[in-house]
Amino acid sequence: MPTVNPPRGMRDFLPADKARRERVLAVIRERYLAHGFDEIETPVVEDYGRLHAGIGGDNEKLAYNLLKRGLDADAIRAAADDPAALTDLGLRYDLTVPLARFYATNRAQLPTVFRAIQIAPVWRAERPQKGRYRQFVQCDIDIIGDAGPRAEAELIVATLDAVDALGLSGANVRINDRRALDWMLEHFGFAAEERPGVLITIDKLDKIGPSGVVAELRERGADPAAVDAFAAHLARSAPEPGAFGADAVRAALPAGVPDDIVAHLAGIGEAVAAARVHSDAESVPLVFDPFLVRGMGYYTGTIYELAHPSVGYSLGGGGRYDGMIGRFLGQEVPAVGFSIGFERIVDLVEDHDGASAASVVLVHDRDVPLAELAALKAQLVAEGARVRLEQRTKNLKALLDRATADGYAAFATVSAGQSRDALEVKPLG
Amino acid sequence: MPTVNPPRGMRDFLPADKARRERVLAVIRERYLAHGFDEIETPVVEDYGRLHAGIGGDNEKLAYNLLKRGLDADAIRAAADDPAALTDLGLRYDLTVPLARFYATNRAQLPTVFRAIQIAPVWRAERPQKGRYRQFVQCDIDIIGDAGPRAEAELIVATLDAVDALGLSGANVRINDRRALDWMLEHFGFAAEERPGVLITIDKLDKIGPSGVVAELRERGADPAAVDAFAAHLARSAPEPGAFGADAVRAALPAGVPDDIVAHLAGIGEAVAAARVHSDAESVPLVFDPFLVRGMGYYTGTIYELAHPSVGYSLGGGGRYDGMIGRFLGQEVPAVGFSIGFERIVDLVEDHDGASAASVVLVHDRDVPLAELAALKAQLVAEGARVRLEQRTKNLKALLDRATADGYAAFATVSAGQSRDALEVKPLG
Repeated sequence: MPTVNPPRGMRDFLPADKARRERVLAVIRERYLAHGFDEIETPVVEDYGRLHAGIGGDNEKLAYNLLKRGLDADAIRAAADDPAALTDLGLRYDLTVPLARFYATNRAQLPTVFRAIQIAPVWRAERPQKGRYRQFVQCDIDIIGDAGPRAEAELIVATLDAVDALGLSGANVRINDRRALDWMLEHFGFAAEERPGVLITIDKLDKIGPSGVVAELRERGADPAAVDAFAAHLARSAPEPGAFGADAVRAALPAGVPDDIVAHLAGIGEAVAAARVHSDAESVPLVFDPFLVRGMGYYTGTIYELAHPSVGYSLGGGGRYDGMIGRFLGQEVPAVGFSIGFERIVDLVEDHDGASAASVVLVHDRDVPLAELAALKAQLVAEGARVRLEQRTKNLKALLDRATADGYAAFATVSAGQSRDALEVKPLG
Repeated sequence: MPTVNPPRGMRDFLPADKARRERVLAVIRERYLAHGFDEIETPVVEDYGRLHAGIGGDNEKLAYNLLKRGLDADAIRAAADDPAALTDLGLRYDLTVPLARFYATNRAQLPTVFRAIQIAPVWRAERPQKGRYRQFVQCDIDIIGDAGPRAEAELIVATLDAVDALGLSGANVRINDRRALDWMLEHFGFAAEERPGVLITIDKLDKIGPSGVVAELRERGADPAAVDAFAAHLARSAPEPGAFGADAVRAALPAGVPDDIVAHLAGIGEAVAAARVHSDAESVPLVFDPFLVRGMGYYTGTIYELAHPSVGYSLGGGGRYDGMIGRFLGQEVPAVGFSIGFERIVDLVEDHDGASAASVVLVHDRDVPLAELAALKAQLVAEGARVRLEQRTKNLKALLDRATADGYAAFATVSAGQSRDALEVKPLG
């Protein structure tokens, strides 16, 4: 007999977990819809060639591929030195590559500025470890067709609204712009060819601190004068919450940063502040972070991460990827997205009392005629209750504890001839 | 540039379709929960060995398998004569095999009588044709741990309630029992070894009619006297709606059918009738059909199909499969399920007016400051509206038509300095 566990790195969801996940997803979906986003769905499978076009970065290496059907012995032998010949489809490793394909496919039926919601699982063959799964849900919103700061502002406001609605108010967004990063590195004298490596090191700032970053840049053999200039800047510049705007952006960067980059960021800040004026927060929930990098290679402009004071890790992130849609469409279309890290968020959300007020376990004697039970249950369901039937067992307590754990709030015992009116409903737990 | 279509036989869902699907799923889920079922989720992938243990019937041949990761040239060559060595995981082709595995894995944390909801996609490499897809959603409810007619009654009542809630009242359920079929074929004199073939022919009754069935049985070379007896029975027995119960079951079968089979069916009928006493229908929505077969080999008792007068095909079905859980658990546990054919149902459900009353497109001039727009949108969202921003274009009509198609009910134009109070909201379409 094979093991009865789910495949390695993947999870079953029991009723209480599944209910919690569906509740969180429903809140996120509802908030995104309110902000004018439209939900779409794509197949979980995409063409192998599309998934491996270099857009997915490191995730491409983690993709699961489907075995081609109907391969004969010769075809398999011929594939020994070209394993890609064994596959033609793969499971998606993110929702961005499929969205780009979807937009290219269906563009004629979409509004000019298309605001997409995607709430769906993705698969990556990660090395299994705590908190990292091989199947997990992503919640993405994206805006395609809007190059201006309105797009980032709508994404950020919708995301913060969703997070508020989940009871996690107090979140903020760290924001930067890849163009500002590039400009800054050029300004300090890093050569174009060493900048990608420099960015990989700067990306570790949260983990290894400023001195660690500077040391690693020197180890890397980056231009020493450039490293010195960067180190001096790093020492004096720390993100300041609550002071987001053109001045704060300029203050955090060397003098001379191009105006269009500052204006785009300031535009986002003004719009987010205007939209959030009635929120509980005291200040704009945006922080300019000139050292924020984010890993994916496809970002071309703004990048941002969702932070919450209760945890030390990011709860989501995104950015602008103006070049990607063009890869599928043969025509440049601006695009920008924000993804909530659902698997992280769902663990932070407080358990409501999952028990619906109108949920009841009917514990019936063995001799109650089935037709009576069915009629009683139907009547309670028609009254709006959620009803579970249980035949009485010797261990009544175990039965009621199980029902409490599953979210039931009340129980009643049922004997033969029981009428609805005489039913005594008692609270559980 | 590769084609931009989704993989063959699979579909993208545009916003209007996706919204309709989510609406239908929400109704089904809500009704199933009310009837005391609990939703669970399993990974889309299961071990290859489990998916190919002979339980899935013909669907096993249609399974998509995942290419093993990290195969070297030698391993590929060695697999030339044993392609199964190239895979270790597969996409599920139904929700029943994963449920059996889930129950075996998690049994200690589940109630003794476990009522499961599974709403999830499955994959089959079907030959693409109209109305048949390679990825499609199944809505299954199952009861594990209850051998009595209460289980079938709860499944049937919950399913009929869900179908009613979708506006498709008038549905009924054709029911039979595999044990009754077996007994009947033995009674007419079919030898044990010819009965599986005879069932395959009887299963075609809807398509080829009684004379077609009898002709095919003769062609098959089935025992001539048995065929004559069966033909005589077929000619006199037609399912009669509205007269379900022990008498109707006995009337539709040759004399001598075992009492326990009749009692089980009659018990289901009484319970369903009692639960449905307040429904609009004039009679019990159950029809005993002694010639209903259903394809899957794993059924061991009752089998049934959901029918609706508006269509000639089945909208769902299920049955009892008491042997399957034991395959994974090493211990027999009774089990019975009912699956709604979601892809068929979703096409029948009337489009509500998808437009929420409180949905509005704000058409703004180019010169409206972004912060003003963001504040106005946030205010309307806070008031409970769904809001889409659109910059005015020359073709205003196209823009509004698109919004109408996407479910928006109203629009308003926004100029610089626009206040919420002065906003004139006009109906669309």
